[in-house]
Amino acid sequence: METKIDFDSTDSVRNAKPLRHVQEVIFRTPLTLEHGDMLPEVKVAYETYGTLNSKKDNAILLCHALSGDSHVASHDAEDDPGWWEIMVGPDKPIDTNQFFVICTNCLGGCRGTTGPDDINPKTGRRYGIDFPEITIGDIVEVQSLLIDHLGIGRLLSVVGGSLGGLMAQEWSTRFPDRLVSVILLATAARLTSQALAFDIVARNAIQSDPNFHGGQYHEKGVIPADGLAIARMLGHITYLSRESMMKKFDANRTQGRQVKSKFETKFSVGSYLAYQGDKFVERFDANSYMVISKAIDNFDLGSTPEELKKSLRKSMCRWLILSFSSDWLFPSFLSREIVDALISLNKRVNYCDIPSEYGHDAFLLPHEFPLYGEMIRSFLRNVFCEQASGETPLFQRPDRLDYEQILDLIPRGAKVLDLGCGKGGLLARLRQRENNRVLGLEIKEKYVLQCISRDIDVVQTDLNAGLKAFEDDQFDFVILSKTLQTVSDVEFVLDEMLRVGTRGIVSFPNLGFHEHRRRLAEEGKAPRIDHGRDPGEWYNTVDVRFLTLADFEDFCAKKKFRIHHCIPLDTRQHKQVDDDPNQNADVVIVVLSRGLS
Amino acid sequence: METKIDFDSTDSVRNAKPLRHVQEVIFRTPLTLEHGDMLPEVKVAYETYGTLNSKKDNAILLCHALSGDSHVASHDAEDDPGWWEIMVGPDKPIDTNQFFVICTNCLGGCRGTTGPDDINPKTGRRYGIDFPEITIGDIVEVQSLLIDHLGIGRLLSVVGGSLGGLMAQEWSTRFPDRLVSVILLATAARLTSQALAFDIVARNAIQSDPNFHGGQYHEKGVIPADGLAIARMLGHITYLSRESMMKKFDANRTQGRQVKSKFETKFSVGSYLAYQGDKFVERFDANSYMVISKAIDNFDLGSTPEELKKSLRKSMCRWLILSFSSDWLFPSFLSREIVDALISLNKRVNYCDIPSEYGHDAFLLPHEFPLYGEMIRSFLRNVFCEQASGETPLFQRPDRLDYEQILDLIPRGAKVLDLGCGKGGLLARLRQRENNRVLGLEIKEKYVLQCISRDIDVVQTDLNAGLKAFEDDQFDFVILSKTLQTVSDVEFVLDEMLRVGTRGIVSFPNLGFHEHRRRLAEEGKAPRIDHGRDPGEWYNTVDVRFLTLADFEDFCAKKKFRIHHCIPLDTRQHKQVDDDPNQNADVVIVVLSRGLS
Repeated sequence: METKIDFDSTDSVRNAKPLRHVQEVIFRTPLTLEHGDMLPEVKVAYETYGTLNSKKDNAILLCHALSGDSHVASHDAEDDPGWWEIMVGPDKPIDTNQFFVICTNCLGGCRGTTGPDDINPKTGRRYGIDFPEITIGDIVEVQSLLIDHLGIGRLLSVVGGSLGGLMAQEWSTRFPDRLVSVILLATAARLTSQALAFDIVARNAIQSDPNFHGGQYHEKGVIPADGLAIARMLGHITYLSRESMMKKFDANRTQGRQVKSKFETKFSVGSYLAYQGDKFVERFDANSYMVISKAIDNFDLGSTPEELKKSLRKSMCRWLILSFSSDWLFPSFLSREIVDALISLNKRVNYCDIPSEYGHDAFLLPHEFPLYGEMIRSFLRNVFCEQASGETPLFQRPDRLDYEQILDLIPRGAKVLDLGCGKGGLLARLRQRENNRVLGLEIKEKYVLQCISRDIDVVQTDLNAGLKAFEDDQFDFVILSKTLQTVSDVEFVLDEMLRVGTRGIVSFPNLGFHEHRRRLAEEGKAPRIDHGRDPGEWYNTVDVRFLTLADFEDFCAKKKFRIHHCIPLDTRQHKQVDDDPNQNADVVIVVLSRGLS
Repeated sequence: METKIDFDSTDSVRNAKPLRHVQEVIFRTPLTLEHGDMLPEVKVAYETYGTLNSKKDNAILLCHALSGDSHVASHDAEDDPGWWEIMVGPDKPIDTNQFFVICTNCLGGCRGTTGPDDINPKTGRRYGIDFPEITIGDIVEVQSLLIDHLGIGRLLSVVGGSLGGLMAQEWSTRFPDRLVSVILLATAARLTSQALAFDIVARNAIQSDPNFHGGQYHEKGVIPADGLAIARMLGHITYLSRESMMKKFDANRTQGRQVKSKFETKFSVGSYLAYQGDKFVERFDANSYMVISKAIDNFDLGSTPEELKKSLRKSMCRWLILSFSSDWLFPSFLSREIVDALISLNKRVNYCDIPSEYGHDAFLLPHEFPLYGEMIRSFLRNVFCEQASGETPLFQRPDRLDYEQILDLIPRGAKVLDLGCGKGGLLARLRQRENNRVLGLEIKEKYVLQCISRDIDVVQTDLNAGLKAFEDDQFDFVILSKTLQTVSDVEFVLDEMLRVGTRGIVSFPNLGFHEHRRRLAEEGKAPRIDHGRDPGEWYNTVDVRFLTLADFEDFCAKKKFRIHHCIPLDTRQHKQVDDDPNQNADVVIVVLSRGLS
């Protein structure tokens, strides 16, 4: 029985036919590679979309993944779809009405740019195994030749996922003054040992294929099809998640699709892998696979925070970093390591871990596109606006007494971190009024997107995990606005807050407020704390901690925190409270610092 | 530079030398296999430990994983260590002073039991590719021949991890009256599509090796060493976790150990894989690998709860099921699916997900042994005692007013489920006094172990995930004793409780207690609720919900829950409260049921 498994995955459906819109440029000056080898000349295949403006400040370079090429999107209705068709085009997040988009096939590839499959002009024979070992640096160096050739001094952004993300990171440090921003998706500063192991087994499969002939297979008129197909099968397992494989294959588990293949096709997943393996061999070169996968494996910006910081220190761009929760090939914590290094270096960074079931491939797929597509659209718009005009959009002044009070506490120019920043309302106001350097931490993706839309730098973070990325005294003020009561590990979060900030500003609902006391004492019911955001009953409120101002003062005394100001508010009457604050304030703002120890 | 990577993993260090203590028996009656093929005779290689007692009721069958064999432990000081040396021996959890332990090499194997590497007596040639397709059922059938041969009617337990766990499950349903208990570790009722995919790629690698010769490689005087080595490398990646690979390889990432191999040895993980691959080829047969891995892949007790229940319905044994949190080859949720089916069928089951960084191999390793080893020891002791005497040990009567009150509410013979059962104190008391059928759910591993030690059936569960395994009205009483206030999603948990139980018994600390009111009203401080377990301050209590009796009554009215009894207690004065319970009780017990809808 023929089953209905969708065999088409984003980057393997395209066949090997020539791409109609590919342009080509040959650089005839010999290129010295990072390891000292030399290429006598380099040919670069690329495609462009949109128009370079007169200021030449709207150019975006896109970098492809392992099996990708220059064809990132279709050029017209007759054209084949590209590997990121959802992202690139008129009115799409990377809007070709506004931006000039460039995508090259990478050095070492087999889709137009110089690679092992090409003729070595010095010998007149294919490079084959003699193609030198290349690095991500070499790939980026070749891209930069093209950018020069196109007359572009500075790129608005370099964008890449997976391998493409390695290239984008390399750009940020190799040519720090040649790009305004970087967007990374599903990538890492270096592979995990697990991902490395898969690459090694894949290469072992290729090299063990008797048709590999030490890489000189073309001369024998054969190709190492079995080894390359097995490498590709392995790759496919790592691009999918366990969940997405269950969805795709479990229903028809034992019924393989009828695929003509020498490989096992009995199980549905087996027929899928056989198909993908065989298909890949038609369009990809084994030596290219070896060369590029080695470049990936050797890429390493550092395994410790210190090494990573050293690598990233000279970057000057703004960053948007996106990981995908079920990606186990480039797991989220690796993106977070890059983010942490950038935070620690005071670089401008935005980060979100996009919830997804679709594994590493998620960044190429439409499922989570409404979230990550919009983040990319907003980020590019902001970066472009800022570069063009230095302007930031205006926001409405929030009519919130607690915000106003907090704003008054912060002097012009102070660096401010907001823990649990929500939609960024306070930070937007602060930046507009006081021109502060601000960063928000927030756990909910939808709020992260809203911050990015407002051009507030935001890093998705669970506060209960602490602020380990941050340096001691990195900020002048750290704000915890009506968030304390939702935190499990209060002591840890406050310790962290006062380590990172010279001053902390905490606001919280006061359980000691007379209305709460009355309700418990007279009605015998638990106080209902309505603080404007997600109000709830005792059985469903987001609050998990209940404290009075007196409790907080006791706590500060025990912790030896120093209280500099205490501003009790009656927000219902929109006024500051004069006497008996623990009785009369429904919300309190406290400015504190760690004591002398 | 030579690096210090520990290359020895549990099951691949043994070389191929003959095992001194292996016994052998040949069954000369032809064996018809599940798929209809016939084996003219079957030879079984096995080892035994300890002594079969006169009642023949102390025999335990151990089942090995893919590359294991009969040598589960050393027999004496001179003997080589076995694959589960930590578990089996005098005074070890599977105590050979007490139990008679049997371990066979499985059918299709290459370590003594009939497999493709053997001579087919009908042809005088090796079976090779002609060895018939076998199932886990066939493997178990052959084990049962040996059990007959040893004169054992009923096994005290069948114990297995990974592939061995498939055999143990098969035993429970194929011979339900021939075993008292089953212990499963790191296994599943069927593979994930991801695990299946790895097996398929491994077989493709073996079959693509030109030395495979369609399985008749022995006749050509070669072996498909490359393919088998690549299969083994892949296997090794899946046996480790990402975390354990980082620990093992990240420090010396680029420094491979000097290993003589045709495979890539550049990275530390590469040299490890090359070593493991080459080593495996010396001791394992490629056709055995193919035959056994296909048997694994075809094992399927069902993918839906209904199918699983159908498969497991006829089992009559007690179950201990252990998964390991970082095992991604047989992930924990698959063990939980078996547990859920058994719960729903009212089978006696214990379950724990052992926290571990060591992936699938964790069940063979010493790291988590103090936890899972003790669980196995306790479980076997309880099963053996119960079988021998029907006795259960005596426990001290707990001097706790709330327990006494709850016990008085439950009639003799009622089926009782305790949500958040802790160390099982209430259930132990209940079973002893009322002879009830009891089951506890508990999240903390250390409490799960204590329940198992007391012979209280316990399933590790996060209550916030609900009780989906349970049938409507499966229990007469469901208890939530001083746990309500620690639950995030109160409404969901209570709905589930009253779905599964005809009656629910809830006890919780009452925020309305006069002392709490006074503290807030007069001192302006948050009530401090000391309820004997993990008391804490406002900033670190495990409680996240605070409610009065009046709040709970309002809630029940809103939810249309029916309150049958309400027992207000003043536990400080060790008495029941007579008037104004919301004022005078510090703890309340409420018996309720869902209303008519």
